Amino acid sequence: MEPRHLPTIKDISSASKRISGVASVTPLVEAPALSQRFGRRIFLKLECFQPTGAFKLRGAYNKISRLKQNWIVAASSGNHGIAVAYSSFLLGKKCTIVVPENAVDEKISRIADFGADVVKFGRHSDERTAKGRGLAQENGAAFVHPFDDPDIIAGQGTCGLEITSQLDDFDSVILPVGGGGLISGSAIAVKARKPSARVFGVEPEGASKLREALKVGHPVTLPSPRSIADGLIPSSVSELTFEAARKFVDGVYTVTDDQIRTSMQLLLREAHVVAEPSGAVPLAALISKQDHSRLGQKVVLVISGGNISLDLLAQILSDLE
Amino acid sequence: MEPRHLPTIKDISSASKRISGVASVTPLVEAPALSQRFGRRIFLKLECFQPTGAFKLRGAYNKISRLKQNWIVAASSGNHGIAVAYSSFLLGKKCTIVVPENAVDEKISRIADFGADVVKFGRHSDERTAKGRGLAQENGAAFVHPFDDPDIIAGQGTCGLEITSQLDDFDSVILPVGGGGLISGSAIAVKARKPSARVFGVEPEGASKLREALKVGHPVTLPSPRSIADGLIPSSVSELTFEAARKFVDGVYTVTDDQIRTSMQLLLREAHVVAEPSGAVPLAALISKQDHSRLGQKVVLVISGGNISLDLLAQILSDLE
Repeated sequence: MEPRHLPTIKDISSASKRISGVASVTPLVEAPALSQRFGRRIFLKLECFQPTGAFKLRGAYNKISRLKQNWIVAASSGNHGIAVAYSSFLLGKKCTIVVPENAVDEKISRIADFGADVVKFGRHSDERTAKGRGLAQENGAAFVHPFDDPDIIAGQGTCGLEITSQLDDFDSVILPVGGGGLISGSAIAVKARKPSARVFGVEPEGASKLREALKVGHPVTLPSPRSIADGLIPSSVSELTFEAARKFVDGVYTVTDDQIRTSMQLLLREAHVVAEPSGAVPLAALISKQDHSRLGQKVVLVISGGNISLDLLAQILSDLE
Repeated sequence: MEPRHLPTIKDISSASKRISGVASVTPLVEAPALSQRFGRRIFLKLECFQPTGAFKLRGAYNKISRLKQNWIVAASSGNHGIAVAYSSFLLGKKCTIVVPENAVDEKISRIADFGADVVKFGRHSDERTAKGRGLAQENGAAFVHPFDDPDIIAGQGTCGLEITSQLDDFDSVILPVGGGGLISGSAIAVKARKPSARVFGVEPEGASKLREALKVGHPVTLPSPRSIADGLIPSSVSELTFEAARKFVDGVYTVTDDQIRTSMQLLLREAHVVAEPSGAVPLAALISKQDHSRLGQKVVLVISGGNISLDLLAQILSDLE
């Protein structure tokens, strides 16, 4: 196996051309009501307007369009699964997605709608990944990991690259941290194109894998990560994404589930945007009582996705203060 | 008083320069889930991302920036009132907004936040307009009508003008009809720049003033217009907006409040956008069982605003089927 390296800005630019016409150049809009509230100019990079409702399409399509295999396997019931199924459909490849035994019908049908086979297996992410890798190996198919892959990271980095061309000037970018693919790629792009800008990550309190990893100097595995932000609960970052974060990320915020709920409400009321819990954490970082002094005056929040059931949305609105 | 004429495409282009940097060039995004559902490509022009949360800023700023008076009066507790207050604030003019006696605090505070004086008066729109005109006359101030004004119409027309430069090709545009300012200006711009495109309006069943006017050949006054879409219930269109609609609008859809609620749910779930009831009516036209054959394959829906309280949003989600 060839050694794996972090993508460069050149790799990210190539990814940008590769995904053009499939993933959207999503809008970057100022949210004046939030700017007023937080005393800084707040801009939103709206990945919820991707065709699949989340940034994951960037990495998945970049990866899968480079694969020679005609059968693609992934393990995810969430946005990565939808993005892999959609990319495989567009590229005319067979696709199998391993989802948890207890996955809800709504999520399964979004994957099946793109013609993918859905395999229900296990309850933990590690079991499903092993199952997916096994399936791929038995069948000569390609297994596509959600973040531990240079082509995935390069694809997600196109989000950061777009920000640098959409906004003349900005001081910082705040992104959610799940496995670290989005922040790794985007931080590489931002620091290459605009070295003065700072890049911050945000994790739920119950799943602070990057913060812990940066503390001890290597990836650590959390025993039981949990959060309402279901896209941010891998048990650890990977060697690759850890390396990128160590080099290019300026700090990590930690937020509570209550702060995430409040952020979702604020985004609905003051920015007219539906964010899923994982997509709302950058705003939660502004709400939380942590040091914001290094953010500067022009801050970009990456609202990474908007896939949320109306039931959960109703529940979040029922918690109105 | 000089005779009033409909604005031309040149007036709308001038308005576009005048409001640049104040009103946003709002995003135009495809909503693939809606495209799939309706069997046509559906694009959303997202006026909910205006700084004041609705298109009204376009007309208000265009008008007020041309006035020599330093005191501005308007009658509206809704998006026009907010837009007039904000524009006056930016232009350093004194501002008075007449709102209904029973206006809710949330709306009043959005107006007062921009430094405007708020006068509570009466319960009906006609009483408030008379009161506003009276106040203006007594004080040498300018009264700004929400739609019966060439400069307001030209300003709202910049929305249509932007669509023609944002999308290479499209077959039709669907817009909400309140007093008719938005559709008049936008239809003039669309027909000038892209004569092959069709322009359709949408009204609530309980407030079909334009449809009735087109039937009889002149503006008619509805006795008691009502709808959940509180931005679309003026009792009539004006001579000016009627003239524009007669010349440039290809048809008018009528929708029920239930269809509006369903559209708001669809926009939340499938497009991740918060629309206020008035802003969701273009999608309601697609849901309604009316003739869609003239819409063509590429349809732009103008989502005219997103200002809705979380209480009403929660109520709309509680009606989930």
